[in-house]
Amino acid sequence: MSDVLDLACELIRRRSVTPEDAGCQALLAARLQRVGFRIEHLRHGEVDNLWAVHGAGGPTLAFLGHTDVVPSGPETSWQSAPFEPSIREGKLYGRGAADMKGSVAAMTVALEHFVSTHPGHAGRVALLLTSDEEGPTNLDGVRKVAEGFRVRGERIDWCVVGEPSAKEKLGDLIRVGRRGSLSGTLAVRGVQGHVAYPEKALNPIHVFAPALAALAAERWDQGNADFPPTSFQVSNLNAGTGATNVIPGELTALINFRYCTASRAEDLRARTESILAQHGLNYTLAWNLSGEPFLTPPGGRLRETVVAVCRELCGTEPEQTTGGGTSDGRFIAPLGAEVVELGPVNATIHKVDECVDVAELERLPALYQAICERMLAI
Amino acid sequence: MSDVLDLACELIRRRSVTPEDAGCQALLAARLQRVGFRIEHLRHGEVDNLWAVHGAGGPTLAFLGHTDVVPSGPETSWQSAPFEPSIREGKLYGRGAADMKGSVAAMTVALEHFVSTHPGHAGRVALLLTSDEEGPTNLDGVRKVAEGFRVRGERIDWCVVGEPSAKEKLGDLIRVGRRGSLSGTLAVRGVQGHVAYPEKALNPIHVFAPALAALAAERWDQGNADFPPTSFQVSNLNAGTGATNVIPGELTALINFRYCTASRAEDLRARTESILAQHGLNYTLAWNLSGEPFLTPPGGRLRETVVAVCRELCGTEPEQTTGGGTSDGRFIAPLGAEVVELGPVNATIHKVDECVDVAELERLPALYQAICERMLAI
Repeated sequence: MSDVLDLACELIRRRSVTPEDAGCQALLAARLQRVGFRIEHLRHGEVDNLWAVHGAGGPTLAFLGHTDVVPSGPETSWQSAPFEPSIREGKLYGRGAADMKGSVAAMTVALEHFVSTHPGHAGRVALLLTSDEEGPTNLDGVRKVAEGFRVRGERIDWCVVGEPSAKEKLGDLIRVGRRGSLSGTLAVRGVQGHVAYPEKALNPIHVFAPALAALAAERWDQGNADFPPTSFQVSNLNAGTGATNVIPGELTALINFRYCTASRAEDLRARTESILAQHGLNYTLAWNLSGEPFLTPPGGRLRETVVAVCRELCGTEPEQTTGGGTSDGRFIAPLGAEVVELGPVNATIHKVDECVDVAELERLPALYQAICERMLAI
Repeated sequence: MSDVLDLACELIRRRSVTPEDAGCQALLAARLQRVGFRIEHLRHGEVDNLWAVHGAGGPTLAFLGHTDVVPSGPETSWQSAPFEPSIREGKLYGRGAADMKGSVAAMTVALEHFVSTHPGHAGRVALLLTSDEEGPTNLDGVRKVAEGFRVRGERIDWCVVGEPSAKEKLGDLIRVGRRGSLSGTLAVRGVQGHVAYPEKALNPIHVFAPALAALAAERWDQGNADFPPTSFQVSNLNAGTGATNVIPGELTALINFRYCTASRAEDLRARTESILAQHGLNYTLAWNLSGEPFLTPPGGRLRETVVAVCRELCGTEPEQTTGGGTSDGRFIAPLGAEVVELGPVNATIHKVDECVDVAELERLPALYQAICERMLAI
């Protein structure tokens, strides 16, 4: 077994369902410490975070990943046990194989090789890991670490996120930014009553309906060269006691914007509230900005380097997109870093029988190592 | 204690929460049999129904009531135990005191007196009771009994429903009809997906919004001299898995029409489906017609008699309305009967500390007896 495959299997065996790290970071820290990395364990609440850095002064290239995984669901639904790595027909199966213990193993192996072959490299290389990327709030993971980095002036110039970015084969797609995510919990108040006496009640479903139609029909922006248009979705809508003869007193809706750099969160908030106000609603709306959009523009040194590495080592002309969900890159970009995401094929992530192609996994350390060399080798 | 008060207390002691009768009907049947009524127990499923009739030939005046009550809720919320009658400051407290064991006791006492003083009365007097008026479906109560009556040609010309109709004092309001109730369960289908990939999903909340706004804004009719306009309400609306990052695949809505004689159920159904179709929805809609509207028009002999009895015995000029919810009268009216509802004050029904004014309860048998006399005495 190759070193990266062996390490990926070691990580899969650890049941690190969010926020558990289950010893993954200690294993990786020990390896990196052995080749000269300085280790900081940054535990916040129930979450383990690891900051491992090598070199001094100059620009910093950081690799970013997470050791936690989503739950497996019923283990009997899997062809092989989700926390017992299994290799069949060229694929490594197990929860986290693609998202993202394979990439974490590849980053670690790449960093070991790079500092061993370039002990006097320019600047710094680093690995940042968290055990809370998959959870619902991500409060104590990279968000908290980045806050601390901002306070102490910890520098990150370039950040490679190992999230599984590829569609069909390694190197066919990299992410050069992400949309922002703005959520709201809306409560529309009416007056509860009996359906036989509508004149004594005010149905919040009825009063909200035209506002909902207006929100759903709104075009928030046109997008721009780098991003698709901002998208608005109501993910949950609930009103009613279950009884069929009661007009409900309140309606709740969970709303979410995935927004691009053509709009600002404060404007989306204001426009939403303006539409609600135009319809005379009695409402409360609690907002949560879970991530602002970020973009690494064309011509950025890291972006061009990652494209060149894909082209030369994978033989691909990688699609460079800002699509998909959020990633922890959103917390690092505001520190002033160029952020690019490059990882394995994401077809099976969060599903049963999650897997990664063994041949592609074994090529991944060379890609990460090449990025280190092109950015920091002297 | 008066006979009617004593009997009401006897009934309240029986915990006849729907569909339980808890021995109420047996008690009443024994009393009526003693004065010459012929008794039929018409049990359907878990529901007890009683048909007690006196006399032969000619027109039939039937009193209609129910022995079941709604649940009490937490008994400790009551000032006195809900199934232990308690008289305080001129009120009789207990679950069912107003809805409608008080009226059932009054009807029974009135019928006993009437047949004793008018053994050779014209036509027939009858009492029809069920133990399933308060339940959600009422399948095995008066609905089923009325189906049987239609088949066997059982005649009912006039029907007095003892449901609590009064607002502030006995005789201030009688019901001379009821709106119909038409319900629907609507499922709007979309395509589930991740909020970050709206182009791969179809949010049923968004596609339903304009149709919902149109349904809520629709004026179904103007009402007429006898009825307020038809009312449309969405009582329950639900979509979403709870997860904030998932676009739901389906939305469900429970809808209800309370409709007047200005509209027909089939037209309301067709107009609803037309609005849904105009918005291009992929939906299913299951309808349930739980009761058609009925009206006892001015000039009807029973209606005029009840008004006169209120005027003369209560000193009131009763409001004659078709408002409020449904009642079991909806099953009797289609048999060709004039239906009028007269009962005690309904302010506390379905609430904790349900009660009826003792003095008014004690006057109620005289009202029912006067109706018998004016309709059937020779």
